[in-house]
Amino acid sequence: MTRHYLDHASTSPLRPEAAASMGAWLASGPWGDPGRIHTEGMTARAALEDARDQLAALVGARNREVVFTSGATEALVAAVHGAVGRGRHLVVGAVEHSAVRQAAAALVDAGTHELDVVGVDHLGHVDPAGIAAALRPDTALVALQWANHEVGTRQPVAAVTQVLADHPALLLVDAAQAVGRDPITFGGSGIDLLALSGHKLGGPPGTGALVVRRGLRLDPLLVGDDRERARRAGMENLVGLVGLGAAASALASPGRLEAEAAEQRRLSARITSVLEGIAGVRSVGDPADRLPHLTCWVVDDVEPQAVLLGLDRGGVAAHSGSACSSEELAPSPVLEAMGVDAHHSLRLSVGWSTTDADVDALAAALAPTIADLRALAS
Amino acid sequence: MTRHYLDHASTSPLRPEAAASMGAWLASGPWGDPGRIHTEGMTARAALEDARDQLAALVGARNREVVFTSGATEALVAAVHGAVGRGRHLVVGAVEHSAVRQAAAALVDAGTHELDVVGVDHLGHVDPAGIAAALRPDTALVALQWANHEVGTRQPVAAVTQVLADHPALLLVDAAQAVGRDPITFGGSGIDLLALSGHKLGGPPGTGALVVRRGLRLDPLLVGDDRERARRAGMENLVGLVGLGAAASALASPGRLEAEAAEQRRLSARITSVLEGIAGVRSVGDPADRLPHLTCWVVDDVEPQAVLLGLDRGGVAAHSGSACSSEELAPSPVLEAMGVDAHHSLRLSVGWSTTDADVDALAAALAPTIADLRALAS
Repeated sequence: MTRHYLDHASTSPLRPEAAASMGAWLASGPWGDPGRIHTEGMTARAALEDARDQLAALVGARNREVVFTSGATEALVAAVHGAVGRGRHLVVGAVEHSAVRQAAAALVDAGTHELDVVGVDHLGHVDPAGIAAALRPDTALVALQWANHEVGTRQPVAAVTQVLADHPALLLVDAAQAVGRDPITFGGSGIDLLALSGHKLGGPPGTGALVVRRGLRLDPLLVGDDRERARRAGMENLVGLVGLGAAASALASPGRLEAEAAEQRRLSARITSVLEGIAGVRSVGDPADRLPHLTCWVVDDVEPQAVLLGLDRGGVAAHSGSACSSEELAPSPVLEAMGVDAHHSLRLSVGWSTTDADVDALAAALAPTIADLRALAS
Repeated sequence: MTRHYLDHASTSPLRPEAAASMGAWLASGPWGDPGRIHTEGMTARAALEDARDQLAALVGARNREVVFTSGATEALVAAVHGAVGRGRHLVVGAVEHSAVRQAAAALVDAGTHELDVVGVDHLGHVDPAGIAAALRPDTALVALQWANHEVGTRQPVAAVTQVLADHPALLLVDAAQAVGRDPITFGGSGIDLLALSGHKLGGPPGTGALVVRRGLRLDPLLVGDDRERARRAGMENLVGLVGLGAAASALASPGRLEAEAAEQRRLSARITSVLEGIAGVRSVGDPADRLPHLTCWVVDDVEPQAVLLGLDRGGVAAHSGSACSSEELAPSPVLEAMGVDAHHSLRLSVGWSTTDADVDALAAALAPTIADLRALAS
């Protein structure tokens, strides 16, 4: 059966440009240790810095602001860890990724920090005034996503940088869903720390970065050597980073990101038409100020796992925030924070490889799947 | 110029088996998110568990004891982080990898823990009686390498498991240099936590594991989801782990590890003959109870960087523990702890791809390099 993959917000297939560069690495390296001074090491170091240049160009940062990590999760946990020496207080948006929320909660459990969670409205927006009200003189870090991973709503990052303009707290922006979909210019943005993921933009899994504003010193999470300018120890994932660099370079070519985003908006609009044609289905998140590639829905009266399995049988891969992993069946914390039914969500997300045929397959499979499940339940 | 790579202890080139499996992944995946319940996710999950089986078989562990990480550094830092809730005291061997030493030192700096560093003799051995003397009722963790990364000396791990048999402290064994060179059976060993690196055994960089004894619960370092049985969050580096699994599987085939180790002992013995033929050069580390693939030397009266660059011009890649990275010129903490000249070391290490021609190149290049440098200095 032809497959139709509508779960790009979980992970995107590897872009051909990334596969080509990684295939070249498999064939001939450079496989040396970038921390060594012999020819093999220096050649590897040059390839690593090329990849760093490519990623820096995509997000409008300087080469040396980019700290490579194993992914967005490590970048987010490292950002929280690195900032906590600056004060006893943290401010985190209620719909932040669980990596940030759990890293902050662990500090509260350890008794070293206090946490204010800033709520959101029913569309998922954090109010900058809520951030301002939560700030204390000893606030070390404010964590706010560029846009939400589950519902797509963009956050008022620029407004929050203004709130923080005269406050020493660092601003951490989780841009894992946004990089490669929204144009982002880190330089001059007022953002201190920007986390991103390689595999969500068509690079390989096992790669990511924490972009660290020039001049900012953070205690590293991974210690043991001076790699990444003493900001992240451990041998660099060179084969993966070469792939991430190639994916970033493809996206940074003139007009490419904007063209892909426009196409993803068009496909998401088609998906919206499909979902709006089914009774008892409601959209979640900001209808206008949102990421181009993902839509989120509440489907009344059916279990999300059953919908996902029904779609899968129809060749369509999708995801539900109400089912965070294959081993967990839990309400979505994001939707709970929004005051939305947190037990019955469906997320559909497109990417660089999505075609109209994928949306056609969704249109063919979804309504019968929901109808069958409702008939069974009644 | 033909290159002769004698720095396998830093990183080994990718084994052909690993390159083949990673090339297959680049061509056709599975690239899904192993945490998802759709077909793409479940296929990826199966590949991930195959890789876990392959690595578990190499180290004599159960599948579910293997927690994949981005490398040995992450595994070591996660082990220290995960254990510290068990008590206020840590015991660390003086020649442990800097990841362990620095992670422990950071806890001392934070004021949450106390640390005893157990010294070594002039060959690099930790005395099990020294570990026993350092133990306190509130000791949370004892960290002891399987064998040293810089001088090759094996540590008395089995004896230390006896010391700890009736103590609640966890035993962390850094086996990053040993896995793939020494036969290791985790099950029944008395070891609680075993850290390993993918790229040092011919898998790709960006991969590694912390093997966690069955039933042991650790606070995870990377939080945010329930992957790896809630022991390490973040999307798994599937392309890398498929390669690590293939490398482990190759090494676990009957007789392969033993044959490679015997060949590496033979090549190291040839290297020893070369070095012993040069005046003012002395071996470091245990001459007998040592890893098969690396030897360490003190070269009187010459700067290690100059030796490395001279060898590099002669086509030979080597390393010095006195020059930990390309950006740092520092004495070796390992050699300092052994009471050995910590400023003039040379490490030569072989691996699966090393040939007699590589040793011949070393023999041709080393004596003239040292002689030239000494003539310049005098």
